[in-house]
Amino acid sequence: MKRVGVLTSGGDSPGMNAAIRAVVRSCRYYNLESVGILQGYEGLIQNDMLTLGPRSVKNIINQGGTILKTARSEEFRTIEGRKKAYQNIQKNNIDGLIVIGGDGSFKGANIFHQEFNLPFIGIPGTIDNDIFGTDYTIGYDTALNTVVEAVDKLRDTATSHDRVFFVEVMGRDAGFIALNSGIASGAQNILIPEKKDHINELIQSLEQSAKSGKKSSIVVVAEGEELGNVYELAKQVKAKHPDYDIRVTVLGHIQRGGNPSCQDRVLASRLGIAAVEALMKGKTNVMTGLRSNKIVYTPIEEAIQKHHSIDNELLKVAKILAI
Amino acid sequence: MKRVGVLTSGGDSPGMNAAIRAVVRSCRYYNLESVGILQGYEGLIQNDMLTLGPRSVKNIINQGGTILKTARSEEFRTIEGRKKAYQNIQKNNIDGLIVIGGDGSFKGANIFHQEFNLPFIGIPGTIDNDIFGTDYTIGYDTALNTVVEAVDKLRDTATSHDRVFFVEVMGRDAGFIALNSGIASGAQNILIPEKKDHINELIQSLEQSAKSGKKSSIVVVAEGEELGNVYELAKQVKAKHPDYDIRVTVLGHIQRGGNPSCQDRVLASRLGIAAVEALMKGKTNVMTGLRSNKIVYTPIEEAIQKHHSIDNELLKVAKILAI
Amino acid sequence: MKRVGVLTSGGDSPGMNAAIRAVVRSCRYYNLESVGILQGYEGLIQNDMLTLGPRSVKNIINQGGTILKTARSEEFRTIEGRKKAYQNIQKNNIDGLIVIGGDGSFKGANIFHQEFNLPFIGIPGTIDNDIFGTDYTIGYDTALNTVVEAVDKLRDTATSHDRVFFVEVMGRDAGFIALNSGIASGAQNILIPEKKDHINELIQSLEQSAKSGKKSSIVVVAEGEELGNVYELAKQVKAKHPDYDIRVTVLGHIQRGGNPSCQDRVLASRLGIAAVEALMKGKTNVMTGLRSNKIVYTPIEEAIQKHHSIDNELLKVAKILAI
Amino acid sequence: MKRVGVLTSGGDSPGMNAAIRAVVRSCRYYNLESVGILQGYEGLIQNDMLTLGPRSVKNIINQGGTILKTARSEEFRTIEGRKKAYQNIQKNNIDGLIVIGGDGSFKGANIFHQEFNLPFIGIPGTIDNDIFGTDYTIGYDTALNTVVEAVDKLRDTATSHDRVFFVEVMGRDAGFIALNSGIASGAQNILIPEKKDHINELIQSLEQSAKSGKKSSIVVVAEGEELGNVYELAKQVKAKHPDYDIRVTVLGHIQRGGNPSCQDRVLASRLGIAAVEALMKGKTNVMTGLRSNKIVYTPIEEAIQKHHSIDNELLKVAKILAI
Repeated sequence: MKRVGVLTSGGDSPGMNAAIRAVVRSCRYYNLESVGILQGYEGLIQNDMLTLGPRSVKNIINQGGTILKTARSEEFRTIEGRKKAYQNIQKNNIDGLIVIGGDGSFKGANIFHQEFNLPFIGIPGTIDNDIFGTDYTIGYDTALNTVVEAVDKLRDTATSHDRVFFVEVMGRDAGFIALNSGIASGAQNILIPEKKDHINELIQSLEQSAKSGKKSSIVVVAEGEELGNVYELAKQVKAKHPDYDIRVTVLGHIQRGGNPSCQDRVLASRLGIAAVEALMKGKTNVMTGLRSNKIVYTPIEEAIQKHHSIDNELLKVAKILAI
Repeated sequence: MKRVGVLTSGGDSPGMNAAIRAVVRSCRYYNLESVGILQGYEGLIQNDMLTLGPRSVKNIINQGGTILKTARSEEFRTIEGRKKAYQNIQKNNIDGLIVIGGDGSFKGANIFHQEFNLPFIGIPGTIDNDIFGTDYTIGYDTALNTVVEAVDKLRDTATSHDRVFFVEVMGRDAGFIALNSGIASGAQNILIPEKKDHINELIQSLEQSAKSGKKSSIVVVAEGEELGNVYELAKQVKAKHPDYDIRVTVLGHIQRGGNPSCQDRVLASRLGIAAVEALMKGKTNVMTGLRSNKIVYTPIEEAIQKHHSIDNELLKVAKILAI
Repeated sequence: MKRVGVLTSGGDSPGMNAAIRAVVRSCRYYNLESVGILQGYEGLIQNDMLTLGPRSVKNIINQGGTILKTARSEEFRTIEGRKKAYQNIQKNNIDGLIVIGGDGSFKGANIFHQEFNLPFIGIPGTIDNDIFGTDYTIGYDTALNTVVEAVDKLRDTATSHDRVFFVEVMGRDAGFIALNSGIASGAQNILIPEKKDHINELIQSLEQSAKSGKKSSIVVVAEGEELGNVYELAKQVKAKHPDYDIRVTVLGHIQRGGNPSCQDRVLASRLGIAAVEALMKGKTNVMTGLRSNKIVYTPIEEAIQKHHSIDNELLKVAKILAI
Repeated sequence: MKRVGVLTSGGDSPGMNAAIRAVVRSCRYYNLESVGILQGYEGLIQNDMLTLGPRSVKNIINQGGTILKTARSEEFRTIEGRKKAYQNIQKNNIDGLIVIGGDGSFKGANIFHQEFNLPFIGIPGTIDNDIFGTDYTIGYDTALNTVVEAVDKLRDTATSHDRVFFVEVMGRDAGFIALNSGIASGAQNILIPEKKDHINELIQSLEQSAKSGKKSSIVVVAEGEELGNVYELAKQVKAKHPDYDIRVTVLGHIQRGGNPSCQDRVLASRLGIAAVEALMKGKTNVMTGLRSNKIVYTPIEEAIQKHHSIDNELLKVAKILAI
């Protein structure tokens, strides 16, 4: 292993820059060269790369987004595209690849490995925390704080007006953000894809809340909630209770940006170093992760196929605290 | 003047609590009593009030929302409702009223004064900054910072993905928030109700931006923009440029909450004191405001009828900086 | 178990209010009564308590500090004081106690238990993260973010002026805050009580940094660092390198306050519920904690005597990234 | 006027980057070239400059510090130094200079102008707000918010522990930061260089506060306070009242950094454009400023010699609200 390529792929998440920095600096520390590939797999295909040194990554640990940019690459889904990519890999003397992204990105790398045998390591970077093999993904903690700070602001106005706020947060397949931010912002209800929610239960809970003396409530809804989207849910509640003063807020893409939290910077730093060390030890097709605060490596197929499931204890916590 | 009533009315805004605190503490300073009226005019009608002392308002200067709550009162729009309100005013020995809110709230107080001759002073509290007679309204500065911090997060992800973001901010009748936050967040375009916008100009500006090497752009749209709402605008641009990667975010009610900024706390403190002093001096039907950093009093009718207009210089600033 | 007392003791930390709320609401959920004891053990001695219901703890989950206040109690260190405390416990029909605080607070509760046999459960609340039996203490994550945001600001001015900043952070006995915030803020050096630091190594590292092209550097120092305090260290470096433009900042008590982070609110919520459930199950003299993201109970004596030690991997991470 | 040089000088302040961006982009807008001079006057002497275009200043409007860096230049204080500087000015075909900084920086530019007749415009950039000719300096509003957010955190712990906090804020010659942040953070006392403070009055005020039922207090002290530094003041109060639980915090350099507030970004943008326009109109030796929300130009000698004085109304506000 002499020259390591690094790219970010899929949706960006806060802390990706800290991971890039850690990859680049640990390469230098271990006397490897590092190459940044721009716009994910697209940069491989377009041969859009630049050599990175320790000073190239200064003052980025605190920046959201990714200096390497990220993009979806349709061409990388084709064998022709991947051939081009591999030619550029060879041209640039890259003998190991580090992919920072989600499971879609890992799938691509895995196929690429099967075809061209290039060693690669995955680093889980997504705000959704829905990747098996790590307790936390890079960006998740920052997104949680962004949501909680936003709902704190909504709470001010909810309380002042005795309103019910429906807040949609990210999480197409997983309720991690909704469940944890909902608990942290004192939500009356949290609706997530992982559990069977019923509109009647939601309505009963709001009625119960009103009876118990609460004048305002927050309902947090994951975007992947199967019961319906947040506007639809609000409409159904309003139909039953026209007197409720209901407002809807969709937090949207602000959840993907922002300066990373301390936890995300440390996590990204650790995983970046661990990925380089894994390549050096001859590992491939594994994802670095943190479990019980220790670095672990999970076979990439397991990371792709298995499911990071939410903790039932947290569902109970949410229910108890809404009393 | 012995006993002063204070209420918050209309939409809440950050800094209202600081104004309430200033009213209550300056009453004590000048040996007046102060009474908090809950939920705006509704509290007058329902006789929902409480005596406030200096310690009642401790640790609220930094809190968003309003401890007195706010509500729309349909009943206060009727003469019967206002009669009830006046009876409660008498019952509670209130001989002067301070109304913290927007121009709708001032209109109500003005009618009430004409009917029952109760002295009152208005304090401009709204994030929209659309009130004549003051350079700044309470909550405006905080809302600006909330918007700018949100767009900073969007910029991270816009830059990483080479995207165009359309961001809708508050301002149904006025473009103050859009114009200032747009300049501050480096927007390519800012669409506000005060100027005639054309979809072609918007598209040309984005094309120009792309030509000049910008890979991502922010477009800030006031909710009152006449050209169409933010989703509609995005759709029209997309129709012309299917290759643009466009995302829409509606910031919504987070703009109304949050801990007030330093400027809003100081502004609210000054106006709260000035309102009490105005009542003591026998003034009525005026709004306290800040102009050129000095306390001024504007006849309430002028405050209601005249228009706080945006500065053309800022339109030019926005245009120059988008180069 | 019918009536549970809860108090906060020792230094306050962000998230204590979320823990109080969780104790009170889970008491109601499980049909127990809850009593808040003011100012830690002092409130037991002075019989300064109040009954708490679910609505008493509304809108506090997002507030720093502790609504129950906290204080050191000299009298509780005497057997006479503790007797008074126990009489008040009996008078108020409290049959279980939950103590939110650090190991000093747990020691007091433990002695009290030995003397009067009152069941008690400890909840680890301190920003220092130096308690055995839990991966994280309540307030630690918030303090980390406070430090990192402060150092981000210092970095702006350090970079603009090519300066070396020495930053002292809290941590009298433990380097958790220094080590993690140091990694997250890209520190050139991190000095903590757990490792033997040498002034020469510090100087060499700064020289190395200058040689490698860094123009500005951050050095994070835990207040318990044995090599000397932050001013002393800066002076020694300055003596060797009079040309370095060195500045010192002591972050101080801002690290103890602030709105708790999402992680701290969720942690506090989980531990608060777990403490009530532990009392119900007849447990006593244990501390609730989170290990590998699961609720665990540690005998209080173990929590007091054993040491929560830092991870050597993180020392390596800090070193690699400073390259 | 064809080619404009821009530099930042003196202490950095948040918003300087927004001003640089505005200078560069308005140069392009008006078909001028722009040159960034690094490290203030030192860069003139060392010929350390770079041509800047609109894309060179992308994504900096939200960054604290200054991308041009800043430094004190001893050599520029000598006629030899200034000669070298002028030779480099000629070599680079710079025919107008924009200096972003405080009055010290303006003095230098003024002397330079007298000697070499180079047109220059000043832009007031300092957190202290102590410059005559503008209502606000760039960075002041951000610094106020930084202070207020820090004191909010201190208030959490002050309230929880019933403590008195002495907080030192920046302002060697002027009390703007102390006075406004003190009002906004509900300070019991504010000590500033502009008024004669007495230790007895401070003590009496704290005694009065305790009598009126306040359990905790904040005292804000400007670093230039003549009565003594913050530790000295705290010691004197402690000597009189050993029972007060007093803590001292010196906020220090965090006040100089951080992402600029919306107001600072807009202010900097306006002043940057106004400075370029002034050069184009043939103005020289003036400072751009904002008064009553309008762009004004003040002769540089007036800006240097006259004093921006605090408003007595604010002293009264501070006193009333401390009741």
